[in-house]
Amino acid sequence: MGIDFTVFKGSKTGDIVESKGHRDPAPSEVIVKISHCGVCGTDEHYRHAEMGLGHEGVGIITEVGSAVHSISDFRVGDRVGLGWFHKFCGHCKACLTGRQHHCANSTSFGTADHDQGCFGTGVAWDVSTIAKIPDDIPSEFAGPLMCGGATVWGPLHDYGLRAGDRVGIIGVGGLGHMAIQFAAKIGMEAVVFSRTDSKKQQALDFGATEFVATGGKEKLDGVAPLDALLITTSANPDLSLFLPIMAKGAKVFPLTISPESLQLSPLALIMSGIVVIGSGLAPVASINNMLAFAAKNDIRPHIEKFPMTQAGVVEAMQKLRDGKMRYRGVLVAP
Amino acid sequence: MGIDFTVFKGSKTGDIVESKGHRDPAPSEVIVKISHCGVCGTDEHYRHAEMGLGHEGVGIITEVGSAVHSISDFRVGDRVGLGWFHKFCGHCKACLTGRQHHCANSTSFGTADHDQGCFGTGVAWDVSTIAKIPDDIPSEFAGPLMCGGATVWGPLHDYGLRAGDRVGIIGVGGLGHMAIQFAAKIGMEAVVFSRTDSKKQQALDFGATEFVATGGKEKLDGVAPLDALLITTSANPDLSLFLPIMAKGAKVFPLTISPESLQLSPLALIMSGIVVIGSGLAPVASINNMLAFAAKNDIRPHIEKFPMTQAGVVEAMQKLRDGKMRYRGVLVAP
Repeated sequence: MGIDFTVFKGSKTGDIVESKGHRDPAPSEVIVKISHCGVCGTDEHYRHAEMGLGHEGVGIITEVGSAVHSISDFRVGDRVGLGWFHKFCGHCKACLTGRQHHCANSTSFGTADHDQGCFGTGVAWDVSTIAKIPDDIPSEFAGPLMCGGATVWGPLHDYGLRAGDRVGIIGVGGLGHMAIQFAAKIGMEAVVFSRTDSKKQQALDFGATEFVATGGKEKLDGVAPLDALLITTSANPDLSLFLPIMAKGAKVFPLTISPESLQLSPLALIMSGIVVIGSGLAPVASINNMLAFAAKNDIRPHIEKFPMTQAGVVEAMQKLRDGKMRYRGVLVAP
Repeated sequence: MGIDFTVFKGSKTGDIVESKGHRDPAPSEVIVKISHCGVCGTDEHYRHAEMGLGHEGVGIITEVGSAVHSISDFRVGDRVGLGWFHKFCGHCKACLTGRQHHCANSTSFGTADHDQGCFGTGVAWDVSTIAKIPDDIPSEFAGPLMCGGATVWGPLHDYGLRAGDRVGIIGVGGLGHMAIQFAAKIGMEAVVFSRTDSKKQQALDFGATEFVATGGKEKLDGVAPLDALLITTSANPDLSLFLPIMAKGAKVFPLTISPESLQLSPLALIMSGIVVIGSGLAPVASINNMLAFAAKNDIRPHIEKFPMTQAGVVEAMQKLRDGKMRYRGVLVAP
């Protein structure tokens, strides 16, 4: 059977191109009819590549590959979220010790076949990279959790931080507004940094315990030491402003993939024992934890909806590029 | 009683100045008559400060403060090594959970009184920052272990690395030549990087399993992925050369305090899950472990001796500055 699908791709000119294709499910794959897909800053990075966009998809399983029943619980009719295109090998040291996200042989962006994506009508997807969506989370909210939610959940949940810790969050955007909610519900103090006061009230509404406008400041006086720092802005902030207010042994997470290098003073790192952690590619176990926590604690991305059409993709990506999305765009199938 | 001491200090002009002083031991302090002191790159950083130099001291306890017998095992006649000037508070969250090196209230370089140092005849030193030297380690070798040895031991021993891991070591100098020995004796593969082949044979003699000359190379082909990377050069290397050969989840340790910033690509950190760890200020427990391991495994710094005089200090620091020390200078009392 398989699926005839439409997909929206990037292109060398940066234009969004509509393309068609067909997929039959491989033994370990399911066919998913897409209903919603979040729009992530990373899609923007791939706008100039000839590949299907969209990795925050949600939809219904319409067909399963021949091995799916024996290797997973997924069945036709399940509502699932689709993570990154990574497929883990399952047999390297990392995979065998529960650290799949460090799989030495993962097939990743740029190396897999990219004729499909979740900006489209349907996909064939490996069961190792999908997650069931809890009933309490409407599909339009589930999409942005699949990448954006997982991206902020990992640092807050999987690296030894604890309730009561003071977590700095730089930026109130697609990632930041979810990080504030998760941190608050985990019982952390969410200390939010933004250039101006324009998002202050919203940050407090999301659960921030402190809000600091950084514009024009050369020192952040009066901020008690932070146990962690999540960098969620699309451009790297000047870390020399933040390192002096980090607690000894604090963890710094650069979460957005920006082309410029981070500038880090070895002196500051060594004297304060600061750890800079590259956290991406959440394993499915972490995504499942995150979804369950979001469902129980009413964590919902704040979204703007666009139609799942070429015009809708173009409009949503332009709004994100202009820094005007409040706070995560979601494409909705007709 | 106390001690009348001579000390060699830095000065605003960068000249080494001989100075005299007197110290009576505070209740938790011991008086140590210095016999040897290693010369560390960090002393160079403080050459333009008006403070006593030397934090790799070794000597004999000649007097103890009033509380020493009740709070420690140290006694007159003990041969001890003297670590950094840091004194930990003992009552903050970090101190109470065994992470003294993250003490929120430690008294550190630049804030403590600096009228004394181990480039001199004697000091009064807090018992919380001294370590007994195992009988098997001659004093001239013990000095460089106190800072240099502890600096490379921490990353290799205290951050979850294990026997069999592949550890990259950039630089064969004061730190690097000890890192190779420790890594080899821990059962790790020590993969050594140096600009030229000039130190290749020595690196192999120290226990390196591989040696890579990096001069002029834009890619490091044929090097299997590294689980960790110790940066021991006095200037920061171009990390874009090394990040592509790091294993997923690898740990990078910048160990030398250089004034320039490290340049780190967020993309490389995130896609490979790399962790950059600021490791300094070893707690005494770690130093004791390191000294015991060095004693049992015959780990010895390769040293050049200089007299503990103003001329000796000047000559040793000049040789280190010129990059000609092979591999650690040690000042020896007359």
